[in-house]
Amino acid sequence: MSVENSLAHLSVEDKIVEGAIPVKSLVFKPKTAKTATPVPVVVVALQSTVTPAPLIAQSTGTKEPRLARDELFQSFFKCESAKAFTVAYLLNAESEFHLLIDKQLETVKDSDVLKLNDTLFITKGEFVKFLSKFESSQKVVDFSQEVSKDAGNAKKSNAATPAAAAATSAAIEDAKLIGITVDKSLDFSGWYQQILTKGEMLDYYDVSGCYILRPPSYSIWESIQRWFDDRIKAMGVQNAYFPLFVSSRVLEKEKDHVEGFAPEVAWVTKAGSSDLEEPVAIRPTSETVMYPYYAKWIRSYRDLPLKLNQWNSVVRWEFKHPQPFLRTREFLWQEGHTAHLTKADAEEEVLQILDHYAGVYEELLAVPVVKGRKTEKEKFAGGVFTTTVEGYIPQTGRGIQGATSHHLGQNFSKMFNVSVENPLGPDHPKVNVFQNSWGLSTRVIGVMTMIHSDNKGLVIPPRVSQYQAVVLPVGITKKTTEEQRAHIHSSAREIESRLKKAGVRAFGDYNDNYTPGWKFAQYELKGIPLRLESGPKDIESNQVTVVRRNDFRKVTVKLDELETRIPELLEELQRDLYLRAKELFDSHRVVVNEWKDFVSNLNKKNVILSPWCGVTECEEDIKESSAKRDDGEEFEQDEKAPSMGAKSLCIPFEQPELKPGQKCVKCSHPAVQYCMFGRSY
Amino acid sequence: MSVENSLAHLSVEDKIVEGAIPVKSLVFKPKTAKTATPVPVVVVALQSTVTPAPLIAQSTGTKEPRLARDELFQSFFKCESAKAFTVAYLLNAESEFHLLIDKQLETVKDSDVLKLNDTLFITKGEFVKFLSKFESSQKVVDFSQEVSKDAGNAKKSNAATPAAAAATSAAIEDAKLIGITVDKSLDFSGWYQQILTKGEMLDYYDVSGCYILRPPSYSIWESIQRWFDDRIKAMGVQNAYFPLFVSSRVLEKEKDHVEGFAPEVAWVTKAGSSDLEEPVAIRPTSETVMYPYYAKWIRSYRDLPLKLNQWNSVVRWEFKHPQPFLRTREFLWQEGHTAHLTKADAEEEVLQILDHYAGVYEELLAVPVVKGRKTEKEKFAGGVFTTTVEGYIPQTGRGIQGATSHHLGQNFSKMFNVSVENPLGPDHPKVNVFQNSWGLSTRVIGVMTMIHSDNKGLVIPPRVSQYQAVVLPVGITKKTTEEQRAHIHSSAREIESRLKKAGVRAFGDYNDNYTPGWKFAQYELKGIPLRLESGPKDIESNQVTVVRRNDFRKVTVKLDELETRIPELLEELQRDLYLRAKELFDSHRVVVNEWKDFVSNLNKKNVILSPWCGVTECEEDIKESSAKRDDGEEFEQDEKAPSMGAKSLCIPFEQPELKPGQKCVKCSHPAVQYCMFGRSY
Repeated sequence: MSVENSLAHLSVEDKIVEGAIPVKSLVFKPKTAKTATPVPVVVVALQSTVTPAPLIAQSTGTKEPRLARDELFQSFFKCESAKAFTVAYLLNAESEFHLLIDKQLETVKDSDVLKLNDTLFITKGEFVKFLSKFESSQKVVDFSQEVSKDAGNAKKSNAATPAAAAATSAAIEDAKLIGITVDKSLDFSGWYQQILTKGEMLDYYDVSGCYILRPPSYSIWESIQRWFDDRIKAMGVQNAYFPLFVSSRVLEKEKDHVEGFAPEVAWVTKAGSSDLEEPVAIRPTSETVMYPYYAKWIRSYRDLPLKLNQWNSVVRWEFKHPQPFLRTREFLWQEGHTAHLTKADAEEEVLQILDHYAGVYEELLAVPVVKGRKTEKEKFAGGVFTTTVEGYIPQTGRGIQGATSHHLGQNFSKMFNVSVENPLGPDHPKVNVFQNSWGLSTRVIGVMTMIHSDNKGLVIPPRVSQYQAVVLPVGITKKTTEEQRAHIHSSAREIESRLKKAGVRAFGDYNDNYTPGWKFAQYELKGIPLRLESGPKDIESNQVTVVRRNDFRKVTVKLDELETRIPELLEELQRDLYLRAKELFDSHRVVVNEWKDFVSNLNKKNVILSPWCGVTECEEDIKESSAKRDDGEEFEQDEKAPSMGAKSLCIPFEQPELKPGQKCVKCSHPAVQYCMFGRSY
Repeated sequence: MSVENSLAHLSVEDKIVEGAIPVKSLVFKPKTAKTATPVPVVVVALQSTVTPAPLIAQSTGTKEPRLARDELFQSFFKCESAKAFTVAYLLNAESEFHLLIDKQLETVKDSDVLKLNDTLFITKGEFVKFLSKFESSQKVVDFSQEVSKDAGNAKKSNAATPAAAAATSAAIEDAKLIGITVDKSLDFSGWYQQILTKGEMLDYYDVSGCYILRPPSYSIWESIQRWFDDRIKAMGVQNAYFPLFVSSRVLEKEKDHVEGFAPEVAWVTKAGSSDLEEPVAIRPTSETVMYPYYAKWIRSYRDLPLKLNQWNSVVRWEFKHPQPFLRTREFLWQEGHTAHLTKADAEEEVLQILDHYAGVYEELLAVPVVKGRKTEKEKFAGGVFTTTVEGYIPQTGRGIQGATSHHLGQNFSKMFNVSVENPLGPDHPKVNVFQNSWGLSTRVIGVMTMIHSDNKGLVIPPRVSQYQAVVLPVGITKKTTEEQRAHIHSSAREIESRLKKAGVRAFGDYNDNYTPGWKFAQYELKGIPLRLESGPKDIESNQVTVVRRNDFRKVTVKLDELETRIPELLEELQRDLYLRAKELFDSHRVVVNEWKDFVSNLNKKNVILSPWCGVTECEEDIKESSAKRDDGEEFEQDEKAPSMGAKSLCIPFEQPELKPGQKCVKCSHPAVQYCMFGRSY
């Protein structure tokens, strides 16, 4: 049996197993004398586990392990390349090697399926059995542990990684262990994952596709809730709460709608040890939950408009690769559902809400968006038309749907019989109400994070950041007397207290066990917008040194201007984040009139505005024709993106002028409008 | 076959079917000439459907139908009493009768099981088939429709119900159709249901045990959230969000805990049309969801205390009779979960939180509570001790658990391995953290409603009421000129606007299509704390007439004192609600030292403070020995209560002095403390 087949015959089945747990096999080459036989280190870990080089060094007693190049794979494992490598090749090993196994694998059940590469799927049980062949070389490592202090080579090894090795890995050269070790521009999805987990925004959860929102992200959601809630209440919307469960009978009432959601609906079929007589669904959205009651409550046109909103969670059990905030099986959102007497009244509200959604992105999250209408193909299932705010992620060049506000017309009101007496009198036919629904989810937090954060960690816009400023006493050395130290501390505490009184969300860190440098890195990682350093020189000059998280620009602020300058600096930072993101979106939104320029512009990480005929078949043709071929161009890091064709993102409200006789960018039909296309999330 | 068996042989099974849909069969006798043969009206309806007499009159063309007395059952149906009646007795009918069938029954599936009485269960399909025997007499009625205007006898019939008939029914004599038609003191659970649905707090939902929280109740929840959230944040608690789902592996980790919840856990086993490889549970509470991550996040004692809270919904699929707010399969709550280095620190927090819970009840909801500790039998499964605030419902004389704050000790931290280095140094053993969890749910809204509301509708304490004051223009008659009308309206609008500016949640109703009387009833039903009437005389005297919802007391307020007096009146009303409820609780909390006085005091709708030995077996003995026998005493209306024994509610922190040598109220052992016992929810 060939090495390639040694695992394949253990593989669970030929086809791809959705929901399998991805496992990576990495090979490192430690620093050794040129003449010595190399002893490679093979690391087998959950895809989600970060395996820092210092820990690998510490666990194997080696020095400066670096990701091995293809030559080592060829000479040592008879394997063509790093990319082709799986643990099957361990059978080919030339000589001795280290095998480090991620302790996190112990949390996986033996019957769970692991994904070793795109085609190789194997149960955890079989995998462990296979690895046991190499028991003498193997060691289980908890990669989440801190490196012990005597692992002196740890830091050095990382710092010393030569550029040559970095070219094959996305490791950041001077990254400290607690910091981000993956470069945003080289491995965007690895970076995104680290930024979220190390920044303590979110943690991975043991039910796939579900994530924990930790306080730094949840508090962003709370800010958004307050802002948006105030605005919709001013519009006369009231909050309510409808049940989590829907009966199948009701769920299936609107046909197009249920077709859109059915494949992702989670079903409760058991309670305790008894089977339910009739399974109940968990709401994927609440149209069908709510509208039977709208039919009951709306008796007269005087009951209109009825405007309800709820802040809740919904479940869509997607089988696609989950991604924190962007594609999760449970997510938090608000869903507004309103009923109106007239079409005009309903349509007006659709756009008011869309403006508020744009406000959440632009005013709170400093994320520029383009407002527009979805095409027929992309609109909400069962609705009449969908409006949307669309964002842009520069690193991947992909568009991302921000939030949608739908006009449902009378489709649902006819299905659910939501009608009122005609205001013209009882001789006139009853009127079915005109409905809207609109939703904004925690996805916004993911978009915000992807756009602003950097290789030092999170960057969070001040208006939504849980904390806006950290105050640190600095300049304390061995020579500092106790009295001086106390003075430095007390003046920092005074600053903290004045800021809080001025309404700035500030805190101080007065722990002397950590150096200022360690603290700087820590709060940069967490994205605190302003760092205020107060040392002996600052105190002498009656000032404080302020460092902006986004660009590390230093400013000194006179203490008697503290209460005015700090809020100003926060607003300046907020604005600068927005302007920078806007500049990137604007410069990557290009007008393309000829198909020949379409794909090349797409490949330059642009979204594209093109004249378009408005025909669904043409839209599908554009998508297929723009799928990226493996033409030797560098692949994007995100595993979903590379070969994706361009979807229609929206028909922007703000339209370039259409020239007379302008044809569709793809087909020969006349263009009716410009449409924004792009690869997308 | 006897009449009694005619349905029994169709019955689905001998034993009781949990979750069956209760159906009522009522018989009404319309007003007829003494000499005429009576034509009774039989109404078959879902238990939850209200069947107003005017609608019955309208649907049958009869006058003033009243609930029939036992004599009619005996003479007409050969059935002993109203209580024994089921539709089976229709087979015995002396002569012609009307049969009205609730349209809502159409929403029930043929395979669903109906509960006709405590022992008779039948599928909807069989039931309909049986009723079809009486097709010629039968009519389907939508009892939720409004009575048409030409049903002139409707209002009269209700108003004219003589006291004699009212004695057998709980109908309120002068109830208007839109108002409450059930007397709080005669049919508490019927009243409770009406008050909630007609007051628009809540609606029933088509998944049993789930309810819709409409804006008036959800806004109360929002007030509670703001108040409590501010206080816990001041204690250093941060909000977060953990997933809805738990894997069975994690759920089952703490044994006592899972035993407590397992029978009520809802399981998701399918997504779309595929079976999940491993079913996932919906959280019944989040200890096991959260603590594996506490183990991961808490690395050092410097990470302590960790204090997280979440506002979410949990699911406990109870098979007991559901009751809005009090026992529901999904409910909203907050759950706080904290980890501490020391027992003392944890225990201190348990009590701080309990004080905040008491604050929610007493300061916001005007509901007095008794703080105390739960007995070993009643404490939280898996915890060390549970503290609680206990309320009291005067009409039923039952205690009700308000909210609980648990100290978990190290039970969970040992199971989930949540530990830190010993602060004394690495030579000392690791320390498992000390944990608390605490929760307060939407149950509070039910308790508040039961206590304050009355036969006119809801009474909502001003501090939590969605609206605090309604402004109504009054005194407009046919003689009023258009100019005068405009002046009355504009002065009312002026009052509304001034109140809003002063921070009072006020609104006005300027609709001339409804009379002031209709509006009075409407806003009394909805429990708006203050009604401000502004008529010509008020305007002349530069004043407004204010009516308090709780006691209908009238006060005049000079317009130049509007902004100070209205907030004062709201606070006075708030305080008066509290004092009245406290007086009732205090006067029904009696000290009983001798067992001979125990049950008689319980039957007087008291809760009881008794010296107690603290032994679980004795507690169980007390419960059994105090179960109410069917001794001819009037049953309470609530179907769960009548035969219930007294449970321990709590061991109050505030203790009567224990006399030396005092024995337990039940057994011969020495008493160790006073314990509060009562029938309970």
